Amino acid sequence: MTTVSVLTAEQFLNHWKGHRSLTRKAIEAFPEEELFSYSIGGMRTFGEIMLEVVSIAYYGVEGVTTGTWRNIEKLPYFTTEKTITTKQQLLEFWDKTTAYIDQEWEKLLSLDFEQPIKSFGTYENTIYSSMLYWIDNEVHHRGQGYVYLRALGITPPFFWERF
Amino acid sequence: MTTVSVLTAEQFLNHWKGHRSLTRKAIEAFPEEELFSYSIGGMRTFGEIMLEVVSIAYYGVEGVTTGTWRNIEKLPYFTTEKTITTKQQLLEFWDKTTAYIDQEWEKLLSLDFEQPIKSFGTYENTIYSSMLYWIDNEVHHRGQGYVYLRALGITPPFFWERF
Repeated sequence: MTTVSVLTAEQFLNHWKGHRSLTRKAIEAFPEEELFSYSIGGMRTFGEIMLEVVSIAYYGVEGVTTGTWRNIEKLPYFTTEKTITTKQQLLEFWDKTTAYIDQEWEKLLSLDFEQPIKSFGTYENTIYSSMLYWIDNEVHHRGQGYVYLRALGITPPFFWERF
Repeated sequence: MTTVSVLTAEQFLNHWKGHRSLTRKAIEAFPEEELFSYSIGGMRTFGEIMLEVVSIAYYGVEGVTTGTWRNIEKLPYFTTEKTITTKQQLLEFWDKTTAYIDQEWEKLLSLDFEQPIKSFGTYENTIYSSMLYWIDNEVHHRGQGYVYLRALGITPPFFWERF
């Protein structure tokens, strides 16, 4: 009973890809002037939050495919907004990450998802749990960005536009 | 290559269960007075949004396990906040839904997740895509609730508290 499979690797990765496509639309919809300055309730800006999301994707894929993890606290894009300060730079890093995921696609498809890892040198879990967490984290933070967009009077992209 | 499985039914359902547990904490953390009145940028209140989330869970489980779908637009809890207007009532419906999921657990575990369905009489997709969408929708809306909470000066539950 408990061995019924829900998702194949390809379905799982395509699911992530769809979410990443929608998140990119949310970044695109965000006004340049507010991306790294606007905040509600003392939270981070949407730009800063998205730097976290895209860094986890890039260095996460690097980690699961090579077995070598960078310490995310020390990553250039994760901690210093000094290097990425504009919407264009953020979108460029986003697209670089998408290209990297595509490049590593076959390796990702053949991962042993039950394998235990210590992602970013810190979080002990299986590959599938870690990657699910990254996706959930992205959906969670994109949802926050939707509130920022609404507060700025902008209509966010439809939640089902994953292409 | 593409037949590698990522998630078993049990892992998938437990993943959802963990998210539902965290979402309940976010509702609990929300101040009673603002639950059905506070809004940012013209969005729905957190109470209304959570009525959507919990209705999808309850009537979604009913649909996939019985094969009979209610039209969600006509559901009592989904459209009329007349019947559920307090935090206690919302949490009661939440807990009733959790008990229902537990009751139907074995049936859910043995679903054919690749089966095409027309959920809520409207959305054509496989069972796994539909259920993933419900979970993503919950994570998305909970993330929005986190912004509401922060704007109200309240610290939301930790994102990893799924128990």
